[in-house]
Amino acid sequence: MQGAQVIRVDERDNVAVVAVEEGLPAGARIGGLCQLREAVPAGHKVALTRIPRGAAVVRYGAVIGRALRDIEAGERVLEEMLELPEPPPLDALQAPAAAPARGEPLEGFGFEGYRNPDGTAGTRNVLGITTTVQCVAGVVEHAVERIRRELLPRYPNVDGVAALTHAYGCGVAIDAPGAEIPIRTVRNLALNPNLGGEVMVVSLGCEKLQPERLGLRGEEPFLVRLQDGGLGSFDAMVARILELAEKRLERLNARRRVWCPASDLVAGVQCGGSDAFSGVTANPAAGVAADLLVRAGATVIFSEITEVRDAVHLLAARAASPDVVADLKRAFAWYDAYLARGGADRRANPTPGNKRGGLANVVEKALGSVAKSGSMPLDGVVPPGERAGRKGLLFLAGPASDFICGTLELAAGMNVHVFTTGEGTPYGLAMCPVIKVSTRTALARRWPDLVDFDAGRIAGGALTLEQAGWGMFRLILEAASGRKTWTERHGLANPLALFNPAPVT
Amino acid sequence: MQGAQVIRVDERDNVAVVAVEEGLPAGARIGGLCQLREAVPAGHKVALTRIPRGAAVVRYGAVIGRALRDIEAGERVLEEMLELPEPPPLDALQAPAAAPARGEPLEGFGFEGYRNPDGTAGTRNVLGITTTVQCVAGVVEHAVERIRRELLPRYPNVDGVAALTHAYGCGVAIDAPGAEIPIRTVRNLALNPNLGGEVMVVSLGCEKLQPERLGLRGEEPFLVRLQDGGLGSFDAMVARILELAEKRLERLNARRRVWCPASDLVAGVQCGGSDAFSGVTANPAAGVAADLLVRAGATVIFSEITEVRDAVHLLAARAASPDVVADLKRAFAWYDAYLARGGADRRANPTPGNKRGGLANVVEKALGSVAKSGSMPLDGVVPPGERAGRKGLLFLAGPASDFICGTLELAAGMNVHVFTTGEGTPYGLAMCPVIKVSTRTALARRWPDLVDFDAGRIAGGALTLEQAGWGMFRLILEAASGRKTWTERHGLANPLALFNPAPVT
Repeated sequence: MQGAQVIRVDERDNVAVVAVEEGLPAGARIGGLCQLREAVPAGHKVALTRIPRGAAVVRYGAVIGRALRDIEAGERVLEEMLELPEPPPLDALQAPAAAPARGEPLEGFGFEGYRNPDGTAGTRNVLGITTTVQCVAGVVEHAVERIRRELLPRYPNVDGVAALTHAYGCGVAIDAPGAEIPIRTVRNLALNPNLGGEVMVVSLGCEKLQPERLGLRGEEPFLVRLQDGGLGSFDAMVARILELAEKRLERLNARRRVWCPASDLVAGVQCGGSDAFSGVTANPAAGVAADLLVRAGATVIFSEITEVRDAVHLLAARAASPDVVADLKRAFAWYDAYLARGGADRRANPTPGNKRGGLANVVEKALGSVAKSGSMPLDGVVPPGERAGRKGLLFLAGPASDFICGTLELAAGMNVHVFTTGEGTPYGLAMCPVIKVSTRTALARRWPDLVDFDAGRIAGGALTLEQAGWGMFRLILEAASGRKTWTERHGLANPLALFNPAPVT
Repeated sequence: MQGAQVIRVDERDNVAVVAVEEGLPAGARIGGLCQLREAVPAGHKVALTRIPRGAAVVRYGAVIGRALRDIEAGERVLEEMLELPEPPPLDALQAPAAAPARGEPLEGFGFEGYRNPDGTAGTRNVLGITTTVQCVAGVVEHAVERIRRELLPRYPNVDGVAALTHAYGCGVAIDAPGAEIPIRTVRNLALNPNLGGEVMVVSLGCEKLQPERLGLRGEEPFLVRLQDGGLGSFDAMVARILELAEKRLERLNARRRVWCPASDLVAGVQCGGSDAFSGVTANPAAGVAADLLVRAGATVIFSEITEVRDAVHLLAARAASPDVVADLKRAFAWYDAYLARGGADRRANPTPGNKRGGLANVVEKALGSVAKSGSMPLDGVVPPGERAGRKGLLFLAGPASDFICGTLELAAGMNVHVFTTGEGTPYGLAMCPVIKVSTRTALARRWPDLVDFDAGRIAGGALTLEQAGWGMFRLILEAASGRKTWTERHGLANPLALFNPAPVT
């Protein structure tokens, strides 16, 4: 039913989503299926057949809940009509009997990137300044402003400078369970391929997160401790940061883009401000692009553990090995316990915008969210804050919060980011190009200077999923080669946000 | 023993702290008390008499631990020689039999401040832009940069513009226990007296923390939703923010400083990067200033719950009413449980710098930390994120993390900040003057353009505690009247940091 008034994803579905941007009026006929009993807005669900009380409401071929009362054909299906199913039990997760099929390798694709000493490749050439603690943030921001104004104009091959500031480093229970997550995130952010291996660290001196604890090494000297006896005055601190920065800018500026195979790409896919179109246009198209990337040898990372919780059985069924299933079980059990300890569960996920956008509950959101991961075998699970460590399709077991997710994907080594959005968000990152994909054409039209790719054309029938996936794949390669995305053109970047499950003190 | 080689705070103490900045060599004679058996650095403790194994090591007249082995007179006392005492049991806390004595009222003190419609007074005249969610941070920072460059020069009576950005608002368990803390913090930050009652909010639209939930009201229109249909393009978003900002700048610019009594001051006292001198110079001097402020009718807020935990019995003994003791019990029990849930306890507090600076453990740190609160009766306990609600000496029951503490004190209504530091930190805030007080003269000399007041002169004997306290009191009134502190002159400000004890999703 592509290009029609409603989108039904799987032939087992007894609900469909209104695909007309202005919604459909009461009385509208849905193909030969039913007639609308009431007006239904775009993105919202309509029952295609009568669903008796207690029967399964099916979307994406999966149960998104049971009817709490009889639902008539043509009726709009709302959150309060559905009983939320239990999440899939983790103990029951099974590796598939046979390893799932891999797609045909795609040869010959690549991009113009910056080759790094450690074998990775950057899509940007950015000076990163790592910080150990929030105390230095004001000084580092001040220094970065001067670097932008006074130094960068002399180093035109350098794309920018990123202050890796954060709220961690002191006033935290640094030996509590879970504290290793923010610490390794800070470490691995410094090793992101887009920073060219040019490590530089600004520390206060007395903080809990001592720079040695990060285990970073760089061209000496790479560390500024503001409390060092030699730094008399604020001016001296800033001058010292500028001096170390300039050494790095000289080396970064001497680099040139070279041809890199697609296997050097580490693409992070993420969604934010999802609506009911996310799961039928932008996310499945991103999934097609993910399949192409994996077939071309690249790494694709998807994440958002609370959104995936209700679809974890579908991921287990795609596991490339029993180890991956064991890793999934461990990661999801940890997160279930983390939420329970804080008096929450995965139902805390959907936002008011999600619901306004038509998503009934976290199950429906989960099914639409995993669509971003495409259909290739799942090759591994990345613990939050760790580097990817291998190629292929990887699940990063971190929270769905947009900025924590982006930060963890950067720490994993992401060098290009695909961000699908329904309601729209001006999300950007300083370390990496962010390709923003709209789920609907209305958003792409309203924000022409923020949306990089309009997947809403799928709903209108102007593009097939396959065409949209290929278009996104090509745009990823272009962005990786230096084509600036919208947020980069505006210089828009959101701050990093670390995931710290341990207490503050 | 003020002005001598060592400082002994209370006559019951069997340890003293080396007060000579270069430390003391082995063989040095300590008055008529003992001879040093080894070299002892500045800020570190020496045993004044023989302390047999199992006996109490006493400082500030209180037990900071029991000796794990015999300690000889003249020996340096290190962390590993002390057994950490149990924290004071909360159930045993008692209100004093009689209400503690109040100091003589101090009449006639005041400052030149900005009178606000709600009766509070600002010490600065700042435009604050509240944000509901991290998604808008990039756009708001971009807009704030343009406001600084294009608008502020036309409004010379306005001191600055502060983007109240933070990592909260979505991707969080917004109905979990504890989520009310970050939410009310965001709300109450907008009501800080230094923002002149000119509320302005930037929201995305689909976030969990819907602006209505903040319950803020301002001169209409005061809300920009970036997802609003009318805002086609990034440029339109920025233009809209600038338009609302300019209306507020016009009104703020028309205000003038007027004489305000000292009772309009809300002073937050805090310490960061503490050393062993914090508890003998800067913090007791801040305590003298706190007493003067309270006697002059002002509000003084101190905080840092994990640092105060081991001295909570001393606070209970100063409670102005049994209700205050009940509030203390409740607040500390909540925090004990919060830490335990995360697998930590109050021992997580001291930092490497604290220990290097001479502090043996959290008990010693606590005794030095509460010295900032002076000696007046404790009038109330402020839950984290709440406004102060009354005048007098108040304990804010939030974490010790410098930036969370500063943020919570701003939410409580702080309009002037006193920050004591031993190891040194370039800490600054955009919303409020921060008076930085050094515990040692060496730091004041090394950072002449960051330290506003040198309390180290107490150790050298150049100032008495009383003189230092009065000096600080006068400096607080001057800063409140518009005298710029060092971080303000540099434009140095650390980001806000919310306290969110609930999970992220």
